[in-house]
Amino acid sequence: MKLIRYGQAGQEKPGVLIGETYYDASSITADYDEAFFANDGLAKLAAAVAGNALPATPVERLGCPVQRPSKIVCIGLNYSDHAKETGATPPAEPVIFFKSTTAIVGPNDAVMIPRNSVKTDWEVELAIVIGQKASYVEESEAMDYVAGYCLHNDISEREFQLERSGTWDKGKGCDTFAPLGPWLVTKDEVADVHNLRLWLKLNGKTMQDGTTANLIFNVPFLISYVSQFMTLLPGDIISTGTPAGVGLGMNPQVYLKPGDVMELGIDGLGTSTQTVVAFSKPA
Amino acid sequence: MKLIRYGQAGQEKPGVLIGETYYDASSITADYDEAFFANDGLAKLAAAVAGNALPATPVERLGCPVQRPSKIVCIGLNYSDHAKETGATPPAEPVIFFKSTTAIVGPNDAVMIPRNSVKTDWEVELAIVIGQKASYVEESEAMDYVAGYCLHNDISEREFQLERSGTWDKGKGCDTFAPLGPWLVTKDEVADVHNLRLWLKLNGKTMQDGTTANLIFNVPFLISYVSQFMTLLPGDIISTGTPAGVGLGMNPQVYLKPGDVMELGIDGLGTSTQTVVAFSKPA
Repeated sequence: MKLIRYGQAGQEKPGVLIGETYYDASSITADYDEAFFANDGLAKLAAAVAGNALPATPVERLGCPVQRPSKIVCIGLNYSDHAKETGATPPAEPVIFFKSTTAIVGPNDAVMIPRNSVKTDWEVELAIVIGQKASYVEESEAMDYVAGYCLHNDISEREFQLERSGTWDKGKGCDTFAPLGPWLVTKDEVADVHNLRLWLKLNGKTMQDGTTANLIFNVPFLISYVSQFMTLLPGDIISTGTPAGVGLGMNPQVYLKPGDVMELGIDGLGTSTQTVVAFSKPA
Repeated sequence: MKLIRYGQAGQEKPGVLIGETYYDASSITADYDEAFFANDGLAKLAAAVAGNALPATPVERLGCPVQRPSKIVCIGLNYSDHAKETGATPPAEPVIFFKSTTAIVGPNDAVMIPRNSVKTDWEVELAIVIGQKASYVEESEAMDYVAGYCLHNDISEREFQLERSGTWDKGKGCDTFAPLGPWLVTKDEVADVHNLRLWLKLNGKTMQDGTTANLIFNVPFLISYVSQFMTLLPGDIISTGTPAGVGLGMNPQVYLKPGDVMELGIDGLGTSTQTVVAFSKPA
């Protein structure tokens, strides 16, 4: 299945995409939240889809396909070509950082350059959505904890991340820095999560063109690994890192400016498009 | 006011402490969550308290005094004596890291040593609870965004934090690593948040004995600063750092072991006690 959330920001309703038609899933659940995943919501939704029980609906805007989760755990430097372009040594074990969940926006919403930012950058990533509570999970069982996958642009402010004292978290959680979606694709529809092309174009020019075959640490390893350090809740997101081609890695470096358009995609997980806008103080 | 949450873990109800008596506040709100703070809940609660409208209740266990927030933002190295004991230079601007909110437990719950941990450590801290949505807040207005304060033991696994590749987040978010409470004390009851003694005893021996007068970056500065990098939501927590006296700073270093008892407190914010238990895989 392809799960969507649609409607005005902050008032999204749950739905599904079948073929090219959107259907409203509000009769099954109020939202795609922790309780939905924990209480077998995906099976109930699948039964409703199989029984043609959902009404078609127009969709004007897509939101992030899951409700704000308890956390977005990100993995740093998980493609060797990206580690190399940033001047870093590929890590001996996964680098973990967090993205504030207030950064979440819909897949085609605007991305805002933060106040005083001069180094806002892009990162196409495969995001894992957790389907059940995961704590000290064995790698051999880790795939049982996956609900599905979605496309993520892990927007990053490089000066905030690398030059402002302290951990990377400072440059990762600005508002609009986590466009997620268009869809949550359930894992049964992804034949091989470790063989997906992922790409990003800036103003029509290909900047990133990689494959999840080159992940240093793969999906079950990451789930098991992260679950040794914290409990993952249903709906939580692990974003698995970005391949080469970010602005930080260019010579000279290239950063986002108002009017820029990012298009990105992953095989089978859809595409998203974000226009960059200048800073304006949120209401 | 002193807000509490009480009852079994995961099923806490809201209440208040007046004198030495606990009162049930369920008639005012289902919980102390984002909506409570955003919708003037503190004023409604104050009116109920003033009108003697709340029934007294027995309390067997205290939980964290706020429902699981969207994030716990922590400030590193914010007391110069602590920076010195860890061998770090006091930072030019605040160090920010995150604590997974799944680490939250009640003030007197057990603290569990994670699997394969040999360096679990304590950190008494003043935690700020945010009262309204805060984005790009000026320092001069920052105190308007405070709901109140609570006591926090920012439990930290030093090997995970410092020796396992990547950011500090890995050693900060293990289950039970965020005992919070006993109370959320509203800001009107804290005469000077920058003149509070805070202390921690391990098995009866004083390990930390500091004062918030020695914060490098003070409360309004921190709120303003963090709000430049991410939006703070009502109920979110900023933990302001720890004074000297942690296990990492001892010679030889001292770390927690099963059976150890931590007692900690901050002037006016109450005390908490946690017993350390060995690892056992969560159910």
